[in-house]
Amino acid sequence: MAKGFLLVLSGPSGSGKGTVSQALMQSRDDIVFSISATTRNPRATEVDGENYFFYDKDVFMDMVEKGEFIEHAFVHTNYYGTPKKFVFDQIEKGEIVLLEIDVQGALQIKKNYKEAVFIFLLPPTMDELRNRIVKRGTETEEDIDTRFSNAFKELDFVGEYDFFVVNDKVDAAVADIEAIIHSEKLRVKRHNGIKELVTRKGGSKNE
Amino acid sequence: MAKGFLLVLSGPSGSGKGTVSQALMQSRDDIVFSISATTRNPRATEVDGENYFFYDKDVFMDMVEKGEFIEHAFVHTNYYGTPKKFVFDQIEKGEIVLLEIDVQGALQIKKNYKEAVFIFLLPPTMDELRNRIVKRGTETEEDIDTRFSNAFKELDFVGEYDFFVVNDKVDAAVADIEAIIHSEKLRVKRHNGIKELVTRKGGSKNE
Repeated sequence: MAKGFLLVLSGPSGSGKGTVSQALMQSRDDIVFSISATTRNPRATEVDGENYFFYDKDVFMDMVEKGEFIEHAFVHTNYYGTPKKFVFDQIEKGEIVLLEIDVQGALQIKKNYKEAVFIFLLPPTMDELRNRIVKRGTETEEDIDTRFSNAFKELDFVGEYDFFVVNDKVDAAVADIEAIIHSEKLRVKRHNGIKELVTRKGGSKNE
Repeated sequence: MAKGFLLVLSGPSGSGKGTVSQALMQSRDDIVFSISATTRNPRATEVDGENYFFYDKDVFMDMVEKGEFIEHAFVHTNYYGTPKKFVFDQIEKGEIVLLEIDVQGALQIKKNYKEAVFIFLLPPTMDELRNRIVKRGTETEEDIDTRFSNAFKELDFVGEYDFFVVNDKVDAAVADIEAIIHSEKLRVKRHNGIKELVTRKGGSKNE
């Protein structure tokens, strides 16, 4: 009776979208994580259709041609994308599909599928954002500067989103997102037969 | 920095919008109740600008002419309306303004001010709706039938609203509305300077 929706959780690097996504998935069982497609080779523990959809490059490019991705990108030496079919099938079944994605990806989705619910995750301060980037510890000073400066620029795209959530404490950010989910589930446009919801349980004037 | 919004809580008679509004007002202090204007005479305990704005009929009609009401209606022998000025002033100050109103009034507001957040309150079943109408005890069988049949027809207008809330238990209905409020407070479009929210607390690359 009710359709689900695509929840796009996005933000600059250092906003904590990975951590918040994981916490959100753990706190509820009515969310399905979107499965990406990729042309890279599966790692030993990865299962096709579970961690990723693994496609040959020609299959992937053919799908790009046919518009079968909500968004896709070339990263390092491989393609990554979000197949429409998986997302739309889940939505039809009434599921909430969570897609954690960078800002560029979210802006692509906004163009192709604006029915999605777009949440922009923000760090509490730029100092904290820099701390978070530094704490990853895997990058050079130059990489860190680049990431930081990209993150700063990406804040300008918040205006393209529906909602913003400041990720100071993970629990509070999750509570904000849960309120958005609660509210979106009450949206009239995703429900058919609201009148029947009330009238099917009896209610003729003559009863 | 953040603008407030007009929350229109509406539904057929018997949906319980009065009860839910009162419970909502009691549960939080960030909501202002919209003050209606009327041409009827004040009762002994009523204060102008608090219970109602009391206007002479010519003043009221002049305001109607000038488009100074979000909605207005003639009920029995008097006019009632929602003055734009009060609502818009509160919204500018960042307040959430709650307006409890019948379906016809809400549809008028939808035409004049679609930026409002529209919630349709539903009874759990038509039997329960009938019970609630009967329990008022102040009406004839014919009045009850008329109210019931109007309520049934008004359910068709749910499609004009943003959200629907089934009022089975008042607490659950209030929780639904509070989630909608929580979510609407996170809307990007009502905030200016989200980027500044993050960057004002320091955060130059060179710190």
